[in-house]
Amino acid sequence: MSCLTHLDETGAARMVDVSDKDATKRSATARGTITLSAEALEAVRSGSAKKGDVIAVARIAGIMAAKQVPALIPLCHALALSSATVDFELGEGNITATATVTCTGQTGVEMEALTAVSVALLTIYDMVKAIDRTMVIGEIRVLDKSGGKSGDWSAA
Amino acid sequence: MSCLTHLDETGAARMVDVSDKDATKRSATARGTITLSAEALEAVRSGSAKKGDVIAVARIAGIMAAKQVPALIPLCHALALSSATVDFELGEGNITATATVTCTGQTGVEMEALTAVSVALLTIYDMVKAIDRTMVIGEIRVLDKSGGKSGDWSAA
Amino acid sequence: MSCLTHLDETGAARMVDVSDKDATKRSATARGTITLSAEALEAVRSGSAKKGDVIAVARIAGIMAAKQVPALIPLCHALALSSATVDFELGEGNITATATVTCTGQTGVEMEALTAVSVALLTIYDMVKAIDRTMVIGEIRVLDKSGGKSGDWSAA
Amino acid sequence: MSCLTHLDETGAARMVDVSDKDATKRSATARGTITLSAEALEAVRSGSAKKGDVIAVARIAGIMAAKQVPALIPLCHALALSSATVDFELGEGNITATATVTCTGQTGVEMEALTAVSVALLTIYDMVKAIDRTMVIGEIRVLDKSGGKSGDWSAA
Amino acid sequence: MSCLTHLDETGAARMVDVSDKDATKRSATARGTITLSAEALEAVRSGSAKKGDVIAVARIAGIMAAKQVPALIPLCHALALSSATVDFELGEGNITATATVTCTGQTGVEMEALTAVSVALLTIYDMVKAIDRTMVIGEIRVLDKSGGKSGDWSAA
Amino acid sequence: MSCLTHLDETGAARMVDVSDKDATKRSATARGTITLSAEALEAVRSGSAKKGDVIAVARIAGIMAAKQVPALIPLCHALALSSATVDFELGEGNITATATVTCTGQTGVEMEALTAVSVALLTIYDMVKAIDRTMVIGEIRVLDKSGGKSGDWSAA
Repeated sequence: MSCLTHLDETGAARMVDVSDKDATKRSATARGTITLSAEALEAVRSGSAKKGDVIAVARIAGIMAAKQVPALIPLCHALALSSATVDFELGEGNITATATVTCTGQTGVEMEALTAVSVALLTIYDMVKAIDRTMVIGEIRVLDKSGGKSGDWSAA
Repeated sequence: MSCLTHLDETGAARMVDVSDKDATKRSATARGTITLSAEALEAVRSGSAKKGDVIAVARIAGIMAAKQVPALIPLCHALALSSATVDFELGEGNITATATVTCTGQTGVEMEALTAVSVALLTIYDMVKAIDRTMVIGEIRVLDKSGGKSGDWSAA
Repeated sequence: MSCLTHLDETGAARMVDVSDKDATKRSATARGTITLSAEALEAVRSGSAKKGDVIAVARIAGIMAAKQVPALIPLCHALALSSATVDFELGEGNITATATVTCTGQTGVEMEALTAVSVALLTIYDMVKAIDRTMVIGEIRVLDKSGGKSGDWSAA
Repeated sequence: MSCLTHLDETGAARMVDVSDKDATKRSATARGTITLSAEALEAVRSGSAKKGDVIAVARIAGIMAAKQVPALIPLCHALALSSATVDFELGEGNITATATVTCTGQTGVEMEALTAVSVALLTIYDMVKAIDRTMVIGEIRVLDKSGGKSGDWSAA
Repeated sequence: MSCLTHLDETGAARMVDVSDKDATKRSATARGTITLSAEALEAVRSGSAKKGDVIAVARIAGIMAAKQVPALIPLCHALALSSATVDFELGEGNITATATVTCTGQTGVEMEALTAVSVALLTIYDMVKAIDRTMVIGEIRVLDKSGGKSGDWSAA
Repeated sequence: MSCLTHLDETGAARMVDVSDKDATKRSATARGTITLSAEALEAVRSGSAKKGDVIAVARIAGIMAAKQVPALIPLCHALALSSATVDFELGEGNITATATVTCTGQTGVEMEALTAVSVALLTIYDMVKAIDRTMVIGEIRVLDKSGGKSGDWSAA
């Protein structure tokens, strides 16, 4: 039977005990997408042409959010991140954000990568919403992770 | 020509001036979805049958995140929220989160509703990830908003 | 039948809607006590004789905590506090902390006063715990409040 | 003569130097109580019967507060917590909260356990205060701790 | 005799009561400078030529810090900022940061403008410190302020 | 050619990877000054004579700010600080703040020491600004640092 490690046997939430896990080098990469209108995308692009600020602001917001995960996700452990990057690709009608986070610790950094992507895309939304009210954020997922007892893993 | 109000004429980011806007009653509703395996969904459901903690934790995380928006989204204004709710629906292979936020203020609360949804879904992801590594968060969008100069709006 | 306004009719937590309440001038005073050994109390007192730092640190911690209430207490509304004070009385075997908080807003400031007292006393505990491991924090309660629809109230 | 390690020889506050202490496995358990009226207790109990949200919200608030200790208690060191749990017992006219926190680090986790208890009880207070204005939070103390140079300790 | 409004008659710190002050439109502009080597300045400039990220990161850090003032400066009131901008000028051997903040509120926004400048300059320091260890941050001051009972004021 | 390690080869900001650096014992001392009028300085001094609260508040603000560096400076790594002290010297027309921070970690603590100094001086500014509008904060610099690959360093 499956069990949720964040719930004890009575169903109560808890921060699971990681004290007996080894501190290993871990990394995770996550990705997500915001779809937006041609006009909105052009506004981001031309803003980028000038001083790149839409993308630069979203990148910083994502990196800072990765560090705030223990304050945002109730049962997450605090981890001393070794690195965090967020990159963007402007596509046809969308922008893709990809975040990679690493640490040496007792739990993985998927939540940090996923949160960096989510907040980066929300930041783009915030800066562009005066132009396009119909944007959709989606396809947020883990691409791959490494380290820990369960070893390396990549999405198919 | 479209313009991004969060950038000044040189392309530099700024927190836009809302001091001349009226403080009106505003609301926004946003929604998003996490897709997950049957096994993972059943774990949430049975956890819910006991003490409801997966959903309860996600709900609290979403509400608290709505209040943290000015610290997360760099150019957002601080708003004194009047109310915040996050509700969930367990579907076929997915869970949908819907957040409604209201305030009386000079800017809208779309970002608060979107952030509540995003963090609620990330919290579910965190609690279930030991069972299912292939979950995807998506379809995060504003359903409707009211108040402010631009008036009421609903997604088609 | 009593009802908890922070739960909706299905029992789900929510931040209650205060948008139709009047913004009135409100205040609340709360008090609490820490009991400690004669040796510990003397250490606080003599520290106070020098530069007063134990009490000064506890006071600042309490005032800052009052401002952090919306980030600590999940369903509390953010309020722009008008004032906050925390005072201390060194008694026989105990120290009493009393906090008064005011604001002009749509909800009361009891939680801000209670949280200021709690964190002020926890800070004393932290600074003295190397001397006394048996301290107890207690008797934390609201002494009086004013403003709002329910009007003025004082503990008997 | 007793001395407060958080004050230097001139009485000035400081964050004490732990760099020469060993990083050992540590734990602490703290407990506290809120007394409330029969009506208020019944409201919590019946809310619990439905979806358990009062207790669930308080539990999450306590766990999240344990992670916020370095931002709340001025001279506390940041610690990467290994686990945190908060449990509740509904008694005759009161609710007892018990928190256990563990970490591998250079200082103990008493403050984290005490803060988790305090914020959990404050959260119950917040959710029930519309029914009962005379609740009192008290008896907050450390039950036992282990690890570190001073070794294991239990309250009598 | 001069008096510090943040201290009561016994010398204890407090958050001063602003509840009887009018909420007026207020603004403040502050400025500060970081001196750095020609090599370090060139690194910033060439980084700026590419994607402007040193300056863009510092700008975002400054704006976000303005919103964190009540959590950083113990006795500051929380204010709902109407706008915040931070601009930079690259000079001979230095970079100047100028921040302007506005709000409608009961106290001024000097601390927000000063904090935005300070954190923006600290961020430049952080990004350039691998090149130049001898940078100095200074000349942080208020240039002008408007609004409130004391009216408009400009540095000579 | 100089390079900014916080920018990748395309100029994009990133949190640099420290995972291959040794965790060594590190320390940094920073200093800064606020110049103020004789009247303002006397107010601080006489406040100090009573209960020392201006300086005590500034000291606590500086220590707490050192712990908030990863949330303030976008690309800084979180570090578990071993100790933090902030001391003050009242001079002729100025007050000097000196902060020393230590940790065992993979990056240095200059930013923590510089931030502690900056926020301590901003806190003095806040408490004295009703008396003197012309204060200037400056001369913020690192005095010395030790630990890490680059070894010990002192300002000339």
